[in-house]
Amino acid sequence: MSQHRHIKLGFILHGVGRTWNDWRHPGRDVNASTSLAFYQKQAATAERGKFDFLFVADSLSITEKSSPHYLNRFEPITILSALAATTSRIGLVGTLTVSYSEPFNVARQFASLDHLSGGRAGWNIVTSWLGDTAANFSKTEHPPHAVRYRIAGEYLDVVQGLWDSWEEDAHVADKESGQFVDPERLHRLDHKGEFFQVRGPLNIKRTPQGQPVIFQAGASDDGRNFAAKRAEVIFTHAEDEEAGRAYYADVKARAKGFGRDPHQLFILPGIAPIVGETDEDAEARYRELASLESIDTGLGFLSRTFNDHDFRQYDLDAPFPDVEHIGINSQQSATLRILALVRAEKLTLRQVAERLATPRGAFVGSPETVADRLQQWFESGAADGFVVFEPLPGQLDLFVDRVIPILQARGLFRTEYEGTTFREHLGLAQPDNRYSSKAAEKSAA
Amino acid sequence: MSQHRHIKLGFILHGVGRTWNDWRHPGRDVNASTSLAFYQKQAATAERGKFDFLFVADSLSITEKSSPHYLNRFEPITILSALAATTSRIGLVGTLTVSYSEPFNVARQFASLDHLSGGRAGWNIVTSWLGDTAANFSKTEHPPHAVRYRIAGEYLDVVQGLWDSWEEDAHVADKESGQFVDPERLHRLDHKGEFFQVRGPLNIKRTPQGQPVIFQAGASDDGRNFAAKRAEVIFTHAEDEEAGRAYYADVKARAKGFGRDPHQLFILPGIAPIVGETDEDAEARYRELASLESIDTGLGFLSRTFNDHDFRQYDLDAPFPDVEHIGINSQQSATLRILALVRAEKLTLRQVAERLATPRGAFVGSPETVADRLQQWFESGAADGFVVFEPLPGQLDLFVDRVIPILQARGLFRTEYEGTTFREHLGLAQPDNRYSSKAAEKSAA
Ligand SMILES: Cc1cc2nc3c(=O)[nH]c(=O)nc-3n(C[C@H](O)[C@H](O)[C@H](O)COP(=O)(O)O)c2cc1C
Ligand SMILES: Cc1cc2nc3c(=O)[nH]c(=O)nc-3n(C[C@H](O)[C@H](O)[C@H](O)COP(=O)(O)O)c2cc1C
Repeated sequence: MSQHRHIKLGFILHGVGRTWNDWRHPGRDVNASTSLAFYQKQAATAERGKFDFLFVADSLSITEKSSPHYLNRFEPITILSALAATTSRIGLVGTLTVSYSEPFNVARQFASLDHLSGGRAGWNIVTSWLGDTAANFSKTEHPPHAVRYRIAGEYLDVVQGLWDSWEEDAHVADKESGQFVDPERLHRLDHKGEFFQVRGPLNIKRTPQGQPVIFQAGASDDGRNFAAKRAEVIFTHAEDEEAGRAYYADVKARAKGFGRDPHQLFILPGIAPIVGETDEDAEARYRELASLESIDTGLGFLSRTFNDHDFRQYDLDAPFPDVEHIGINSQQSATLRILALVRAEKLTLRQVAERLATPRGAFVGSPETVADRLQQWFESGAADGFVVFEPLPGQLDLFVDRVIPILQARGLFRTEYEGTTFREHLGLAQPDNRYSSKAAEKSAA
Repeated sequence: MSQHRHIKLGFILHGVGRTWNDWRHPGRDVNASTSLAFYQKQAATAERGKFDFLFVADSLSITEKSSPHYLNRFEPITILSALAATTSRIGLVGTLTVSYSEPFNVARQFASLDHLSGGRAGWNIVTSWLGDTAANFSKTEHPPHAVRYRIAGEYLDVVQGLWDSWEEDAHVADKESGQFVDPERLHRLDHKGEFFQVRGPLNIKRTPQGQPVIFQAGASDDGRNFAAKRAEVIFTHAEDEEAGRAYYADVKARAKGFGRDPHQLFILPGIAPIVGETDEDAEARYRELASLESIDTGLGFLSRTFNDHDFRQYDLDAPFPDVEHIGINSQQSATLRILALVRAEKLTLRQVAERLATPRGAFVGSPETVADRLQQWFESGAADGFVVFEPLPGQLDLFVDRVIPILQARGLFRTEYEGTTFREHLGLAQPDNRYSSKAAEKSAA
């Protein structure tokens, strides 16, 4: 494996889009969210770009008012299993909640995916944020936040315990002697905890990666501790580079505090790069995206921030009006961040409203500009890599064909997959089987 | 679609084998049960043979004493999703238990598989027969038999209700107007039952088949009623043609009793054909298979039947000894059936012991013999078709290349897939959406 530290890159598959209205872009396939062909094509492009992994988000509750990409989409295990058959190297990461599933089934589905894919499975462990999910699962209430994280910890204990059921050499399959399994190397878990009682063993042998890779996206104090203790990759949201650095430093310090090597925990902010031929071209593409949202959405955000002040009275294309004298509702922290930008960049009212309705992010520009920013975040300690969204059709291809070659030329990204498993791509150690290591300790003693 | 009634054929994917020792055959890949390549190859062969469907069995509890094909295998949803990407026409049927899963998740995974595969999903609904499964799912006891079927009925209500969440035209996705979903055509289920409370709607739109095909394998009185009421295909075990006819007549009568068209319910016994160049060649192949089991296993069955009489005292290759004077343990009905055979076929002790240890079934012979038997069962009202096991490596190819052409020549089996969905292959009606049909009724009234 290369000694050089590389940027880690994931691509998030999100069907019709990622915002309320981006499905309305003329280039979007409105059936993308349940189209295997669409997913296969994106997966192939990301693999051509040597991305580390594909990522599938999830949720389990909708109403007719939900965002289009929540309303209708593939269940993650199914689409990732299908993609296991049509890709050969790229990691396959699925989101699955611990609040409405059984650890035996989940351990098994991810182990199965790891076998199917030759060692490319990852599990993004979430606790479900939509409280009304309970109503789809015969439950009267969604467990409170702190309880959800206690459940998550125990759930992960069970899943990882089940993944160790079979030692590497438990599957003997000696035709001569007729021994199929070595009973000394097949283990019950016999877990008896606060939330779960699970005997085991799992009915699938040890997987190519030993254990699938664990992802998490905790933001709260409990969430950060859980991630710092148990996750191998953290998918995070960073408002800007500074916020990214703060989160990064905080979580890496927590990981150290838990006795972990912080280099075996990767922090990857989600980004939505918009690449153009030039910075101006990219800016125009951002505005094309922003035009899919109604300007009223952004004016509404502003109005709520400024105590219901009416912004429709101003010229949209004049400089942002002087509203410093109007009282501010300090809860709207996102808006306040935008206002800091206004001063720095001298934006018009329309531009401010657009940015509020359609987050722009730090990665809009020519291929060089985007590569510079990625390098900047990576080298300044804001990120070990990124999870890339495709805010506009065609952007994944542009990223792969125009941005990645620059990162490669700078020695920041691989030019070929060097290993075959997802752990090998990431440079993550293969976990020992708890029983094999115990046996080794014993025999060493 | 052809007017002619065809034999329905499924192929059951069972990795290393289907008995305790058939994995020991020199031609078996001992890693088959977790090898995508192996499953892909079998799937491709079955699709070349124009089989209606692939079938994956399942169970959720093992000990070190479990049979090899239970110990280690793919989880059904994952392997079927992978095969959805590598096949184009064949149906994909997975076993999933109602006792240890959540209807929302299961409805969603099968709906997702139906989208992935362009309308080829089927669900074999089981209640789990292994009592100790509870220990893997934080439960203190496995629900009793009758309760399991009550759960199954309500569970299926929920799943089929969720599958109707989206009417055909609920997914509007009109870029011009910005309407993504029609709230009038997206439905909550609001199920409140004895075992489940599920609000809905499902977060995936109506699938190509409207509803995936329902399989069941009930044998008891409760099981037969459930199957006759709710199943579209029944996977059954028939000891011989006569038993097959009795089961067939019974279940079809029950279906009629429930007001169903018995021609929209297919009864498919599982069979393990052994095809040879000639009948003698096939017989030799059966003996090759039987030789993988110890003869003591069969002698043990005999001993238990004849009140612990010791059969090792006899010459294995002499005619079956005269043991009529010895008392019989009448519980061993399988053995008693064999003894009837002994008289008819004048078997040796070795042959009887072999048949007890390695069930031979009615489908051992030349391609013509096997085709004749299939036709016989089909035309005598013992079966609408068959679920084919592969008892020896190479048998699937032989069945496809030698037996199927005979069935085709006789007009008993398709020569090409005529439709694209699994329902179309079977000739099963596309179910109406309950809301759309209500709306239609209303407007007709
Ligand atoms: C970038 C990112 C992606 C996330 N994706 C999902 C998801 O797909 N499904 C989900 O239920 N929650 C998702 N979450 C929510 C997290 O699981 C978590 O609930 C959230 O970050 C709040 O953190 P906390 O639970 O520590 O308060 C995501 C969060 C972030 C930051
Ligand atoms: C041919 C056949 C295949 C079956 N496959 C499975 C299976 O894969 N998983 C399972 O849990 N049960 C399986 N069963 C068991 C049935 O679901 C059912 O429990 C059994 O037939 C007993 O019937 P009863 O439940 O009506 O008593 C199978 C049964 C038959 C006859």
